[in-house]
Amino acid sequence: MKIAIMGFGTVGSGAYESALAEGGIEVVKILDRCVRKGYEHLTDRFTSNIEDITGDPEIELVVESMGGVGVAREFVLKCLKAGKHVVTPNKNLISACYKELMDEAEANGVMLRFTPAVGGGIPWLYNLLRTKRCDEVLEVRGIVNGTCNYILDAMYDKGADFGEMLKTAQELGYAEADPSSDIEGTDTLRKTVISANLAFDAAIKEEDVPVYGISTIQACDIAYLKEKGLVCKLMMKAEKKDGAIEAYVEPTAFSVTSLEANVKTNNNLITLEGKNVGTQSFYGQGAGMLPTGESVIQDVIDIRDGKAQAIGSTGASGLKADNSKAVHRYYIRHDRMCEHIEPLIDTFEEKDGIFYCISKPITVEEMHKMGHHRREKGKEMFFAALAE
Amino acid sequence: MKIAIMGFGTVGSGAYESALAEGGIEVVKILDRCVRKGYEHLTDRFTSNIEDITGDPEIELVVESMGGVGVAREFVLKCLKAGKHVVTPNKNLISACYKELMDEAEANGVMLRFTPAVGGGIPWLYNLLRTKRCDEVLEVRGIVNGTCNYILDAMYDKGADFGEMLKTAQELGYAEADPSSDIEGTDTLRKTVISANLAFDAAIKEEDVPVYGISTIQACDIAYLKEKGLVCKLMMKAEKKDGAIEAYVEPTAFSVTSLEANVKTNNNLITLEGKNVGTQSFYGQGAGMLPTGESVIQDVIDIRDGKAQAIGSTGASGLKADNSKAVHRYYIRHDRMCEHIEPLIDTFEEKDGIFYCISKPITVEEMHKMGHHRREKGKEMFFAALAE
Repeated sequence: MKIAIMGFGTVGSGAYESALAEGGIEVVKILDRCVRKGYEHLTDRFTSNIEDITGDPEIELVVESMGGVGVAREFVLKCLKAGKHVVTPNKNLISACYKELMDEAEANGVMLRFTPAVGGGIPWLYNLLRTKRCDEVLEVRGIVNGTCNYILDAMYDKGADFGEMLKTAQELGYAEADPSSDIEGTDTLRKTVISANLAFDAAIKEEDVPVYGISTIQACDIAYLKEKGLVCKLMMKAEKKDGAIEAYVEPTAFSVTSLEANVKTNNNLITLEGKNVGTQSFYGQGAGMLPTGESVIQDVIDIRDGKAQAIGSTGASGLKADNSKAVHRYYIRHDRMCEHIEPLIDTFEEKDGIFYCISKPITVEEMHKMGHHRREKGKEMFFAALAE
Repeated sequence: MKIAIMGFGTVGSGAYESALAEGGIEVVKILDRCVRKGYEHLTDRFTSNIEDITGDPEIELVVESMGGVGVAREFVLKCLKAGKHVVTPNKNLISACYKELMDEAEANGVMLRFTPAVGGGIPWLYNLLRTKRCDEVLEVRGIVNGTCNYILDAMYDKGADFGEMLKTAQELGYAEADPSSDIEGTDTLRKTVISANLAFDAAIKEEDVPVYGISTIQACDIAYLKEKGLVCKLMMKAEKKDGAIEAYVEPTAFSVTSLEANVKTNNNLITLEGKNVGTQSFYGQGAGMLPTGESVIQDVIDIRDGKAQAIGSTGASGLKADNSKAVHRYYIRHDRMCEHIEPLIDTFEEKDGIFYCISKPITVEEMHKMGHHRREKGKEMFFAALAE
């Protein structure tokens, strides 16, 4: 099969290497502004003109690994309209434009697949779709951001501060220069939207999903939870419940003897609950040139060989996001015990003027609202749901 | 697709239910000696004559869920020769007759698939084959026997004795009346042979793989390891190394912070190491009517829809089993410190006349030989490899 790759950065070149290893996929065009170092021998395949790809009838499939939404969306739409299959690891694009792109693919009789968009090298979305063929998926959840997991794991191990471990993560290349999409939970949000929409044939949007990240966590939170036998992880969660979808992203405290608590460094662990098959989890590298590049090429092979799993019609289930009944008990660190917080609290300990609290059951909406409100006011706060 | 099911016990009826739920698979014949309770409405589909299946041109695929080797082998061969695809969860059969059955399927241009034979409801073998399409699998390992895991986990939790927890496992239906194939490691051995042969295009046999089970473990072993932060699990392991396959089954002690250590009750966790994709693990229910029945039907759907992953030619890699270089440090419990054992030991502690030892590096072959030798003599001994 002849393919093109748009965007020849880390993942694009990883996909190229994986295609070479597979042998039956020929990369005939590469769209990028300049030739990547080490790939000068491919100079004649490089182009900066999308028409060279959309206008080439030999190209059956296009890998989009440019990232972002604007130009990526425009080029992916052009490729789909030109009758080319598209494979992309771009979670920003798929999360933001899921319905538009899936509808366009369907209208043109081609496939859009994005297994590497959630879980990187982990065949999570592929297996989620495979399970759906003869089971009902009730819930998806998981640790899907390796950067956050690296930071949280290192803080737990070393008792170090957030800022210090973020810096280490940046030095190791796990975190971007601007780490906000990781640590504020936006990256996890996108993966939640994509996983939920596939799992439930839904069309929920990013704005439907409350998000609270880990940027306000401190060494004292980790230490307090550790003393109680708990480990904090940033979790995606989406569950089909009472005719709606509960979906949110928040720090969650797990027992030290859970699988989640023992996911180390930058690994991911993603789980589905099937009505018949029960709990099924998938663990591995959620990012990286070779794992993600390989996952791109696995999608390409699936399309080439007719093995791609069917995706249900976008939004066909009619399920909408509704978190009004989602309730947890939370760990909350607060700087005072005032009339706003006290009625919510079940037990608390005070140390050095800081209140470490375990809440009564609170709705996700209320908890997140309080967290964001305190943060906007520049007040000290962190919270984590207590896993059941 | 019209199919038949041979053997209508727990898994056979689970497959039937899963086929019903899927909707596109019709079970037209059921081979069993008597009609299963609750399925009297299907009486006219039951038969005890294999010719009713092999001679029915409408039946494209046969599920073999009779168990055992003798009659199952004979009937599967008949079905393959009659040009019917076969799906089976029968690990005894696949492990013992792998080459014969795969060759017969190939000769008749039909498929033989057995994803549920290892990992029950976990899509382990399917994903192993999928990974191989564009990566090199270097190692497979895992907790693949839910009965042993249930017993070991319960002993760890409750400090209880082996016999007591085995009895509980039997009462809960996790262990058979004759539990020897689980606790002596034979079941894990079969799953090792099947996983290794698929992973490495090999044709290793059960007799190539040293096995030591958990029947000699005692509460004192669990307690000693627990004190050191270690948790004992029964592991399958097969690794491609220096042009050969190291493959063995043995108790292994993992750090309490590993994923393996935190696999609870009767769950399984199975892992591959890919050259490019790195570590990938799959977790879930390794047995049970609905999970295993669903996994059977997933294989059926794959064959029906042309989505079954290719299996490389049996033995094509030419790799043979060779454990002569496989070396670990072991935990060993021994009843005396004699001239046979002393040279092998690095450190030991004595409590109540029992020697709890950590060995120097010992070959798997030597360790297993010693274990079986002591056991034949009716002497106290248990060992577990120390995970790296």
